[in-house]
Amino acid sequence: MTKPYVRLNKDDAAVLLVDHQTGLLSLVRDIQPDTFKNNVLALADLAQYFNLPTILTTSFENGPNGPLVPELKEIFPEAPFIARPGQINAWDNEEFLEAVKATGKKQLIIAGVVTEVCVAFPVLSALAEGYEVFVITDASGTFNPITRDAAWDRMSSAGAQLMTWFGAACELHRDWRNDVEGLGALFSSHIPDYRNLINSYSTLVSK
Amino acid sequence: MTKPYVRLNKDDAAVLLVDHQTGLLSLVRDIQPDTFKNNVLALADLAQYFNLPTILTTSFENGPNGPLVPELKEIFPEAPFIARPGQINAWDNEEFLEAVKATGKKQLIIAGVVTEVCVAFPVLSALAEGYEVFVITDASGTFNPITRDAAWDRMSSAGAQLMTWFGAACELHRDWRNDVEGLGALFSSHIPDYRNLINSYSTLVSK
Amino acid sequence: MTKPYVRLNKDDAAVLLVDHQTGLLSLVRDIQPDTFKNNVLALADLAQYFNLPTILTTSFENGPNGPLVPELKEIFPEAPFIARPGQINAWDNEEFLEAVKATGKKQLIIAGVVTEVCVAFPVLSALAEGYEVFVITDASGTFNPITRDAAWDRMSSAGAQLMTWFGAACELHRDWRNDVEGLGALFSSHIPDYRNLINSYSTLVSK
Amino acid sequence: MTKPYVRLNKDDAAVLLVDHQTGLLSLVRDIQPDTFKNNVLALADLAQYFNLPTILTTSFENGPNGPLVPELKEIFPEAPFIARPGQINAWDNEEFLEAVKATGKKQLIIAGVVTEVCVAFPVLSALAEGYEVFVITDASGTFNPITRDAAWDRMSSAGAQLMTWFGAACELHRDWRNDVEGLGALFSSHIPDYRNLINSYSTLVSK
Amino acid sequence: MTKPYVRLNKDDAAVLLVDHQTGLLSLVRDIQPDTFKNNVLALADLAQYFNLPTILTTSFENGPNGPLVPELKEIFPEAPFIARPGQINAWDNEEFLEAVKATGKKQLIIAGVVTEVCVAFPVLSALAEGYEVFVITDASGTFNPITRDAAWDRMSSAGAQLMTWFGAACELHRDWRNDVEGLGALFSSHIPDYRNLINSYSTLVSK
Amino acid sequence: MTKPYVRLNKDDAAVLLVDHQTGLLSLVRDIQPDTFKNNVLALADLAQYFNLPTILTTSFENGPNGPLVPELKEIFPEAPFIARPGQINAWDNEEFLEAVKATGKKQLIIAGVVTEVCVAFPVLSALAEGYEVFVITDASGTFNPITRDAAWDRMSSAGAQLMTWFGAACELHRDWRNDVEGLGALFSSHIPDYRNLINSYSTLVSK
Amino acid sequence: MTKPYVRLNKDDAAVLLVDHQTGLLSLVRDIQPDTFKNNVLALADLAQYFNLPTILTTSFENGPNGPLVPELKEIFPEAPFIARPGQINAWDNEEFLEAVKATGKKQLIIAGVVTEVCVAFPVLSALAEGYEVFVITDASGTFNPITRDAAWDRMSSAGAQLMTWFGAACELHRDWRNDVEGLGALFSSHIPDYRNLINSYSTLVSK
Amino acid sequence: MTKPYVRLNKDDAAVLLVDHQTGLLSLVRDIQPDTFKNNVLALADLAQYFNLPTILTTSFENGPNGPLVPELKEIFPEAPFIARPGQINAWDNEEFLEAVKATGKKQLIIAGVVTEVCVAFPVLSALAEGYEVFVITDASGTFNPITRDAAWDRMSSAGAQLMTWFGAACELHRDWRNDVEGLGALFSSHIPDYRNLINSYSTLVSK
Repeated sequence: MTKPYVRLNKDDAAVLLVDHQTGLLSLVRDIQPDTFKNNVLALADLAQYFNLPTILTTSFENGPNGPLVPELKEIFPEAPFIARPGQINAWDNEEFLEAVKATGKKQLIIAGVVTEVCVAFPVLSALAEGYEVFVITDASGTFNPITRDAAWDRMSSAGAQLMTWFGAACELHRDWRNDVEGLGALFSSHIPDYRNLINSYSTLVSK
Repeated sequence: MTKPYVRLNKDDAAVLLVDHQTGLLSLVRDIQPDTFKNNVLALADLAQYFNLPTILTTSFENGPNGPLVPELKEIFPEAPFIARPGQINAWDNEEFLEAVKATGKKQLIIAGVVTEVCVAFPVLSALAEGYEVFVITDASGTFNPITRDAAWDRMSSAGAQLMTWFGAACELHRDWRNDVEGLGALFSSHIPDYRNLINSYSTLVSK
Repeated sequence: MTKPYVRLNKDDAAVLLVDHQTGLLSLVRDIQPDTFKNNVLALADLAQYFNLPTILTTSFENGPNGPLVPELKEIFPEAPFIARPGQINAWDNEEFLEAVKATGKKQLIIAGVVTEVCVAFPVLSALAEGYEVFVITDASGTFNPITRDAAWDRMSSAGAQLMTWFGAACELHRDWRNDVEGLGALFSSHIPDYRNLINSYSTLVSK
Repeated sequence: MTKPYVRLNKDDAAVLLVDHQTGLLSLVRDIQPDTFKNNVLALADLAQYFNLPTILTTSFENGPNGPLVPELKEIFPEAPFIARPGQINAWDNEEFLEAVKATGKKQLIIAGVVTEVCVAFPVLSALAEGYEVFVITDASGTFNPITRDAAWDRMSSAGAQLMTWFGAACELHRDWRNDVEGLGALFSSHIPDYRNLINSYSTLVSK
Repeated sequence: MTKPYVRLNKDDAAVLLVDHQTGLLSLVRDIQPDTFKNNVLALADLAQYFNLPTILTTSFENGPNGPLVPELKEIFPEAPFIARPGQINAWDNEEFLEAVKATGKKQLIIAGVVTEVCVAFPVLSALAEGYEVFVITDASGTFNPITRDAAWDRMSSAGAQLMTWFGAACELHRDWRNDVEGLGALFSSHIPDYRNLINSYSTLVSK
Repeated sequence: MTKPYVRLNKDDAAVLLVDHQTGLLSLVRDIQPDTFKNNVLALADLAQYFNLPTILTTSFENGPNGPLVPELKEIFPEAPFIARPGQINAWDNEEFLEAVKATGKKQLIIAGVVTEVCVAFPVLSALAEGYEVFVITDASGTFNPITRDAAWDRMSSAGAQLMTWFGAACELHRDWRNDVEGLGALFSSHIPDYRNLINSYSTLVSK
Repeated sequence: MTKPYVRLNKDDAAVLLVDHQTGLLSLVRDIQPDTFKNNVLALADLAQYFNLPTILTTSFENGPNGPLVPELKEIFPEAPFIARPGQINAWDNEEFLEAVKATGKKQLIIAGVVTEVCVAFPVLSALAEGYEVFVITDASGTFNPITRDAAWDRMSSAGAQLMTWFGAACELHRDWRNDVEGLGALFSSHIPDYRNLINSYSTLVSK
Repeated sequence: MTKPYVRLNKDDAAVLLVDHQTGLLSLVRDIQPDTFKNNVLALADLAQYFNLPTILTTSFENGPNGPLVPELKEIFPEAPFIARPGQINAWDNEEFLEAVKATGKKQLIIAGVVTEVCVAFPVLSALAEGYEVFVITDASGTFNPITRDAAWDRMSSAGAQLMTWFGAACELHRDWRNDVEGLGALFSSHIPDYRNLINSYSTLVSK
């Protein structure tokens, strides 16, 4: 009756970053730009930190949509990067699909721009093929909250787990003792309030 | 347990525009008027662009509800236009139902004013008869967000797919290569941010 | 998989107004007071207009919760009025339950203050006993939107239909021709924008 | 098809307060701080009033996360208090799990900071093991409304009941006559509007 | 350097209601319709209660702007009613100006639709001629908050006092003892929260 | 041309608390109730901490407006308490005016319910008589933000300084060294985020 | 003490459109894009309708800021168009200044992107030189509401009149009888609610 | 009558950064944390870029307020850094005052935490001594919007210019040609939307 608890597992998960392109980002208005940029880079750092296979894809990057955000290219210099010639749903692109399968993972962590298309379409396709799908809601953006809410409803009804980059990081890490410094650094880089806590703390204990 | 992925297909879909009348539009306060007008016309242009059979209907158009918005009449001069004599749920009108069946389509894209009545009632009726129903949420308007949220919950729980005109256009088009200029023109006409991208791009590449 | 379309029927429906008391109303902050008062009276007028059996109940009305809003007493002078001696869930009160059963109806339209308690508890109890339950969301109020959203989620997940007084009126009436003047008067009394449409129209056609 | 009505019962319920720590609280921005503090203390008072077994737990309390809010320690001096050495999901901690089992209860009332991690993870784990789980949404806080909404969707889809401390108190109490003064005092301490009603009332009746 | 305290005085004040017409009201989106309607009628009742000379005016009432809201005509059957043939600023209309001067008052209480035009223009003109001007902000409406804020800034900078109908009523009345029942009735009719206070109180003291 | 810097001085200041009554508080909807209650008590504690002469006044406290909030009576058992028999502007009450003069102070710190009447009227009267007036904006409440904004504009234009209880406390204290513990305790009691900082700090330094 | 009433006069006014460029528009987030585009075009149509001398200027249009929005070029093919080589404040550009002086007008209507720079700088410069300046607030956009509010405060304090395109149109036109059709067409093209009023009206009177 | 245009000049200006401390930052809730952090660092980079003398100060940095944000220390290793022993208004600290005077500048650009105290107090003191004061509103933060609005009103009324870091940068730079790359880099580092424009542009022109 209810969705079972599908728990992210770092050995089972791959990350798909869909269409975070310099032009398309100007369409994102349901999250403030400073916050959105931070969330996308946090997700990228997360993928790198947990060593998750990551796939980059863009749509029409030679046209007005613009190139992939350069920061993502720098973080993932070796990742498969599929510049789709036209397919709107990345899942319709054979090369992309091959790259997904090549990861050998059954859990897909997906984020992109815009939410109801570039994210929702591959999410729905992947669910239909039996993947466990985790949408990183705060690293996905779109025109306005009405659009976002409709897209979330469609994805959740189809079986997707709605998460955030912070929730995903915590579920993947499981236990702080696996690496206190590493996770702390990830949080400190992307959560100003957490960085403040750490700085206050470090100052006091170093006295 | 979860809704299956029902994907819009341009060969299977018809569009129903319900009660976008000049008087009733003054009731719409959950979307700003400039945005709402643009979304409704975008949906109409989409229907025309994809050649989807489209049905127009109004309720009591000789009374305070006012006539159909003239722009819609102009876009669809040949479309079936059912001025309902009294039925609030368009699905209760025989002529409307005939027109729907005459399209021979199993996917219905529905938008209208107001969301919880003129949209939700035929949506629920169509779902009950086995149609695949796609609500264009941003081309449907009502009194306030509380009303909208309740209506969305009722429609989604009954099996409807909540979408937007942009999401529907992308799902119908599938691949930019089917017609880059056409889809680009549709987006440029109705998404100012996208038009700006195109204008910036065209200026640079034409130099 | 999905909720079936349960359609309000004026021969099958009764209305339960729970704890609209002068003291408790000061707790309602998720809807503005002018709007909320109007919605509650609109629901009452709707019940009277469609001749639906209506039950009034209050909780501790001799204490700080205060008496039932006088307007409701005036609209329903003959309705069963159960001043509960202590049960928080009205459904736990035998007299109330008897009154509900005495209506012989299987569809219950419920509104009250506050949403997550006085509304949600009898809604959940009635659903558990097989009634078809329709929550009038905009005639129900509570402390804040977070509380409202949680209560809506609980009621909807349990099978309730979330509606508004306007949606309920339209679904009950089915066809304007059943009584144009009556329904028009109900809307004109409670929807200022609609009243304006009617006044503009009447002025013009009377010339 | 729908969730059954699972009703809180004071003989069946235990309360889990997860990571309400002085440092972590600075991360909470989806509820205003005065309101959030009040809600957390209201839940604590509720647990004490109904004599529900309560378990406290913290994460890394010697680091930047800070110690448990002192007020909670004072209210529950005897409660099991598990300072987790590293597990992010409290349910992964053996000692915590033992404490939960030792209560012998099948209903778990859970709140904490932050919602999508410290609350959602044990909620999902407990549901997977067959517990009836009630999330106290307004005593749980996180970074922003987007995060909260995603976390609510995940928990509700998995079968959790979304409630508030006020709704839980009312469902547990069942009937005001069980103790009018006690419940009235709980409400008066934590709901300013209700306190005003009582003070207005008492002043008048004491004349 | 600062504006002096100009206090409303019931012997010195007249009320100008500008263009509250059934069509123009559909343009008002910076206040919710239930609240706006209530505020306008409250201001009218205030004018009647304090016996303030009142002037009604409309713009193009035979065209799309629609007739004056009928309720205002009923409240002021004898008031000067100037249907302006074209002047947008009512102050440019000789007949209107004569009516204002005929009141012999130096304080003008002004409200209307839309704020930045029908209200601001005569406000600025009246200030320029030395009148003391009081804008009833909550009985004046316009397209959106940005427009309202700009209009308020322009009027306040020019010397107008920004008030609300409730503030004006209190400043005119000065002392409850002048007529407790009358003022109480005015408030009870237009402030639901105040009506609730009175009903709670009356019920208790009548026991 | 601009307002000079008038700095609060603890030897020159008195506090006027106007109409914080249990009934009237139900009208306050521009600040959330938990926050508003906290702010009012913070201002009271501030007055007590700095030993500022404080005057309490109520309007019609035997009627629906209700009695003064009991907490304020307890904090100021010896303060002049003027239950006005009818004057809406406290400044019109001779006894109140005498009490203000008896303080011998030239700076008046004023807060109350509702902002545009019970606060604004004495503020404007006091300014007109040459007092330096400081409005504690966050310990004053009213119907909605539109009303608040209009009232602030009127008071500020007339020369009042708009402050908050926290700003006033800091301006009165001047230097933490005058009493670190005292000011810290005031902040810790009324600012949850500050209390958390102190608790995190104390825990660390006590190790 | 207060700003005098400076009334827009169509014989005295010129329009300055500053930096509405395709790239810069992606920075505007204090107004929704559909609404903003409509407001800018409405201002342009207004300038054309009233035959006001209009000056266009851009900043760095060959770089990332992008070219002037093409629609503006089309509306004003003959207008002076100054592509500034680097001056951020258009008033610092000699050619622009010459163009302004060449209009021979003393009233300047200014709008642009972004508000606190491209609008505020020439506004402040023009005021300093004795021009009467009218800011079209809703055809000017910037990063967020905080920025807008600060910019408005700076411009208003320096003597600018804050207006909207609709207010400016009405103040320029003075009397509907000067040209009913023309003004009606301007409003109908840019105010969907007004267009609906006209369409409802026309339909009825044409019967 | 109105404030004159006081234009920022890079030869006349110094920057004061007041109390951006790791603990105090947890109090800031009127701006989102990612945005606020970015704005503060943007202001620091601006000061460095224009070579403006900059003064850092903190309040009680060994206590719960926490140390200065480390990033600021790194950007200004040589700047005067006054750790105030107790004065709440930095202007009351002799050492700070000396440092300000030592800059020899007459224009002060001020930002800090919290707005109504750490910013407003030195702003008001500096204005009283004849300095031209520019508040960087978006690099100053406080408890909530009500507090911010009151503080802005007080500072603006006393003669301060309300600006943002972006507006200040543009007013200081005057002409892009003074250093296109430098200003572009400043904007690209702190305005994601601008960075996207630059990246889209560079990609195209490099082809």
